[in-house]
Amino acid sequence: MTLYETLANHLKEHIQQGFFPVGSKLPSVRQLSHEHSVSLSTVQEAYRQLELEGMVEAKPKSGYFVRKIEIRTPLPTTTRPPQRPMEVSQWEEVLNLLLCKSESGFLQLQHAMPDMESSSLKPLLKKLGDLSRHRPDLGLPYGDIRGSEELREQLARLAVASGCLLHPDDLVVTSGCQEALSVCLRAVTQPGDIVAIESPSFYGSMQAIKAANLKTMEIPTHSEDGLSLEALELALDQWPIKAILITPTCNNPMGYSLSEAKKERLYKLAQSYDISIIEDDVYGDISYDFPRPKSIKSFDEDGRVLLCSSFSKSVAPGLRVGWIAPGRYRDKVTHIKYVSSSMCPTLPQIAMADFIKTGGYERHVRRMRLQYQQGRDHFLDAIQTYLPKGTRVSYPKGGFVLWVELNDNIDVAKLAIMGRECKINIAPGMLFSSTGKYRNCMRLNFSDQSIADRENGVRKLAYVINKYSKQYS
Amino acid sequence: MTLYETLANHLKEHIQQGFFPVGSKLPSVRQLSHEHSVSLSTVQEAYRQLELEGMVEAKPKSGYFVRKIEIRTPLPTTTRPPQRPMEVSQWEEVLNLLLCKSESGFLQLQHAMPDMESSSLKPLLKKLGDLSRHRPDLGLPYGDIRGSEELREQLARLAVASGCLLHPDDLVVTSGCQEALSVCLRAVTQPGDIVAIESPSFYGSMQAIKAANLKTMEIPTHSEDGLSLEALELALDQWPIKAILITPTCNNPMGYSLSEAKKERLYKLAQSYDISIIEDDVYGDISYDFPRPKSIKSFDEDGRVLLCSSFSKSVAPGLRVGWIAPGRYRDKVTHIKYVSSSMCPTLPQIAMADFIKTGGYERHVRRMRLQYQQGRDHFLDAIQTYLPKGTRVSYPKGGFVLWVELNDNIDVAKLAIMGRECKINIAPGMLFSSTGKYRNCMRLNFSDQSIADRENGVRKLAYVINKYSKQYS
Repeated sequence: MTLYETLANHLKEHIQQGFFPVGSKLPSVRQLSHEHSVSLSTVQEAYRQLELEGMVEAKPKSGYFVRKIEIRTPLPTTTRPPQRPMEVSQWEEVLNLLLCKSESGFLQLQHAMPDMESSSLKPLLKKLGDLSRHRPDLGLPYGDIRGSEELREQLARLAVASGCLLHPDDLVVTSGCQEALSVCLRAVTQPGDIVAIESPSFYGSMQAIKAANLKTMEIPTHSEDGLSLEALELALDQWPIKAILITPTCNNPMGYSLSEAKKERLYKLAQSYDISIIEDDVYGDISYDFPRPKSIKSFDEDGRVLLCSSFSKSVAPGLRVGWIAPGRYRDKVTHIKYVSSSMCPTLPQIAMADFIKTGGYERHVRRMRLQYQQGRDHFLDAIQTYLPKGTRVSYPKGGFVLWVELNDNIDVAKLAIMGRECKINIAPGMLFSSTGKYRNCMRLNFSDQSIADRENGVRKLAYVINKYSKQYS
Repeated sequence: MTLYETLANHLKEHIQQGFFPVGSKLPSVRQLSHEHSVSLSTVQEAYRQLELEGMVEAKPKSGYFVRKIEIRTPLPTTTRPPQRPMEVSQWEEVLNLLLCKSESGFLQLQHAMPDMESSSLKPLLKKLGDLSRHRPDLGLPYGDIRGSEELREQLARLAVASGCLLHPDDLVVTSGCQEALSVCLRAVTQPGDIVAIESPSFYGSMQAIKAANLKTMEIPTHSEDGLSLEALELALDQWPIKAILITPTCNNPMGYSLSEAKKERLYKLAQSYDISIIEDDVYGDISYDFPRPKSIKSFDEDGRVLLCSSFSKSVAPGLRVGWIAPGRYRDKVTHIKYVSSSMCPTLPQIAMADFIKTGGYERHVRRMRLQYQQGRDHFLDAIQTYLPKGTRVSYPKGGFVLWVELNDNIDVAKLAIMGRECKINIAPGMLFSSTGKYRNCMRLNFSDQSIADRENGVRKLAYVINKYSKQYS
């Protein structure tokens, strides 16, 4: 962590603990520089970060003040999925979303696609180009089925930030996080088994559960605290659940992050019921908190946690570079990964290893983290301003998607069709349930639109909702 | 087909039908040029091809003569696998082979890796380099989960050569043929089902069968005629077999190609027992026959054949570009492909589409076909010269691997270890059986060694076998 980040975190903690109440004046730049023995510019940089995070505001000629943080739009209600194992449906609907073409002039709020225009990606693209031109031979033969050693070394280095001490041989590279999840599900279950998941959950995980002939047990979640451990424990008491598949950090679609204490409790619970945890950490590195939150894997004592991740959200999905830290399931995971797609293409792996090693990845992620946090704030502002009363929105702690709950009587599947007429695409909530619940909800992306586009998009959405309400009431 | 190829085929047919007996003089270049109204150089080119294929020899100042073709080393015996469904074992052994590092100075006869040094790959590599430099944006987002449309159009065009009329929407792009096979197995079976396979079979298919919790029913094969349809029919009568997974064209590891009549009979058999056929055609385009043999898929009337292929053998495995023509299983296959690894990287797909479209692929394959055929002939010569009496070798009709059967009392797993001491790697036969049969067999690669290296390799092998025999007899 740099000096200014340490200082910013220190101030943030003090604000959160109430040492500096809302509206109060914060110590001057000079004073902090003196107290912490750092340069004036370091203090200024720290304040600038807190400003970007919306915790602090600068008043001209007066100094820095603690900003009032209001969660203006109410949060979604705690979800109430069916309390029994279910088959996954919704494939048709997911397929429609996946095949939805990018037409020009459309505002694409439906995909969980990161911003890929950032100049901080240039070193990676240059390396990829150079490798393709000068070392095409590296890309031609079969590579190591566990993934290139260079990349696994760098992944082990990165894992330290989430509290994990891993050896490169503890990692298996995959074609994105989707393959990682799919392989892990097959490694820890048998057909017919039950897998506990958060409700709502990412549709790709649920479809992998379906394809592996498994059932889901959806666990209620709250948009701030995430999964209800009480509900999970009840479910574990009642059903022979084999594993839990969870996205505990910057959850998709809700955006919450479980606290570290809760992650540890979840781990202990899994231990006492002897189930495995498949942890989807694909958004972990773009948490708005720095340093990033610890993973559940960091508490793993007996290898029951299979951490899955990729660079699809932090860098670009088209790279198809993901990985698994499979704990005690390493041999099984290696086998299933091999039969699933043999090895992964080598050049993107080498290029990513270089991007991490030379610091480019960290720089890129730092920039994206701030951009997405600002995006969230703009988006929430626009939603509060334009969407009808009664709308509820989650308050993401990272990533670039959020979850909107509309009035009960709105069917978002129909709304989505009306939205397309206005050149706006959204992801209907029903995709995030095994059984088509969350019909009045949607997931929206705020990764890469301009402020104007985003505001315009929300206004259009408001217009469509209004039109819908007139047509169907 | 070019003029000279048409002429070469015409001559070849006449030779095979006995119009020109072995040793007889063939028509002069001038005469053929006149008869067929083609240029002298076209006739010369046709004769040159027949020479390369070993059918014709030029005698200085006398002309061209039909060459005596002898299969000098005896063929392997018809295989006798256990006649009941079996679980697949051998994963440890397969993993050892896969993790076997390419050490310098080693002769790598163990992998089924094509020659990737050919200058005919240059246009593809240039395109890949250009795309990476100038259009990196194409490689970043999620692409179509069915694969890029440009590629699917070209694949549909290519399929015509194997007798298939396919629409681009009849195809799903995969991460190599391994993913294709794995997806198809999961699409047509349920855990516990039995899948009929050729014995011996490619270990990657068998390990995919294992991972999908299926059993194999190994069917006897002959190294010239391939799968015994009689044995298959007996097995179908006796066991509830769900599908057959077969590599009927340029089989790995044997090298045989089923005749078209036999392919059709196999299809009819599958129809009458209502089972699916998963056809692995990954070596089909590098059959030594031109035009290439028809696929079983070309006889498919009711969509029960799932054709799997990739460019891993015809171009390079590192591209990870494979595909499925899934027939009536398209929806299920699309689902399983999506959960298995989401989409495939876009740039290699676009580059391959371009390589096909601009004729580069056809030129490359034409060159490789001849090279591999010459490689086979050299390799067989060396085997006949150096390996001990009693050795049996298959006579490949395409591809770049062959199957060697040693004396019964030789355990090739042990021989392989001794081979490593002499810097030579081989693939033990037991990997090609569900249950570790074929202990006295091995698969050897003849794709890319120089003549000297290959000859040297076989001499070393002979030395190792000799040493083994002394040590263990």
